[in-house]
Amino acid sequence: MTYCVGLLLNAGIVMLSDTRTNAGLDNISTYRKMFTFEDPGERVIAIMTAGSLSVTQTVIARLNDAIEDPEDESSILRVPSMLKVAETVGAMLSDVSFEVSSKMDRMNQGASASMIVAGQRRGGPMRMFLIYPEGNFIEATEDTPYLQIGEHKYGKPILDRVITVETSLDEAEKAVLLSMDSTLRSNLSVGMPLDFTVIEEGTFRIARTRRIEAQDEGFARMSHAWSDALREAFQRIERL
Amino acid sequence: MTYCVGLLLNAGIVMLSDTRTNAGLDNISTYRKMFTFEDPGERVIAIMTAGSLSVTQTVIARLNDAIEDPEDESSILRVPSMLKVAETVGAMLSDVSFEVSSKMDRMNQGASASMIVAGQRRGGPMRMFLIYPEGNFIEATEDTPYLQIGEHKYGKPILDRVITVETSLDEAEKAVLLSMDSTLRSNLSVGMPLDFTVIEEGTFRIARTRRIEAQDEGFARMSHAWSDALREAFQRIERL
Repeated sequence: MTYCVGLLLNAGIVMLSDTRTNAGLDNISTYRKMFTFEDPGERVIAIMTAGSLSVTQTVIARLNDAIEDPEDESSILRVPSMLKVAETVGAMLSDVSFEVSSKMDRMNQGASASMIVAGQRRGGPMRMFLIYPEGNFIEATEDTPYLQIGEHKYGKPILDRVITVETSLDEAEKAVLLSMDSTLRSNLSVGMPLDFTVIEEGTFRIARTRRIEAQDEGFARMSHAWSDALREAFQRIERL
Repeated sequence: MTYCVGLLLNAGIVMLSDTRTNAGLDNISTYRKMFTFEDPGERVIAIMTAGSLSVTQTVIARLNDAIEDPEDESSILRVPSMLKVAETVGAMLSDVSFEVSSKMDRMNQGASASMIVAGQRRGGPMRMFLIYPEGNFIEATEDTPYLQIGEHKYGKPILDRVITVETSLDEAEKAVLLSMDSTLRSNLSVGMPLDFTVIEEGTFRIARTRRIEAQDEGFARMSHAWSDALREAFQRIERL
């Protein structure tokens, strides 16, 4: 399992992913699920992945191949818009899923993945897309400024309560970390370390990117403070 | 969908269920999912149900038939222990699921249900069981003093943080209502009104049972207060 969450705010884009992958409970590994692509000052794209690692690694590798080939018109750093980026990633995901699944069909198994793709090119607005395993996608809007993939339920209540498009990047950072904290507590298949990325509006580059390790003291402190704050808030609520 | 939660505490048993059932999003109804059985001063049992209404209604009807037949040794008000109660309900659930599913198999469909069964008989401890669709079951313990059926994820974080076997019945009432509140907000297929039941340890009767209607002002007030408290707590948390 996986938990990735992306926020599309007026001030910028905030993305957070975990790194745990597992093939059965007895085979657990750490793999990066956050990938960034930059033509600094011109275009910035961040992609988070959930699902079959054989599918997502192949998609990311092919996206990189296309970027490195100066003749390749389908490079996500050169296609004309963020919508085209989403279409390119969606088509690649659909192709790779189909290739991998046709092999796995023989064993009555399947492989699929989903992705969050977000970014901004010079001359266009910031956009964020959730790409389904079939390659089609939906987009974050003012009404629903966040997208999640993987184990989304435990971390949703906090986002519903505090996130609007007006939320500042600092507040947004707290919100995604607390959303992740609730998920980490409840689902063993979501695990540290975390990858955190911020893109500020109109800069066309990664503003901050950071790996938060399992032993990160700041994150542990935030997690304890949130537990204490919840318990205190609970005490103050009056009975029915 | 459904959300039912039961707590097995030193002081007693607290149970809360929603009432929404749906056959597709365009066919939504209200049905009771909380059923109580009493031989006051001797035995008390509460059952909450999730899953196919055709299965759960039949199980409850047959349990009632057995209770009304003075010759029927399988009456849950007469079998010798709470473990036997769980076994009786489990066997009934398994039988009914099988009967209904054999009809539905012809249409490539299935029907299943799960239940939480809790109570106390004179001479025995309080016990609470989660009965799976296949009829087997697990039991609440000191380490894990709560059981959930249906849409359990949204409402789990608050329970994990505040419930232990030492929790008072008043605090437990708040906790299950706030757990339900988070679920109601996030899953449209869980809906008001709610049914709430308390059994106090060693009394062998229902202490309180109450239906909380959609327009209940106390519940709305609690829900708003909790939202405000969460937002305040969020504000007070320091950034990483």
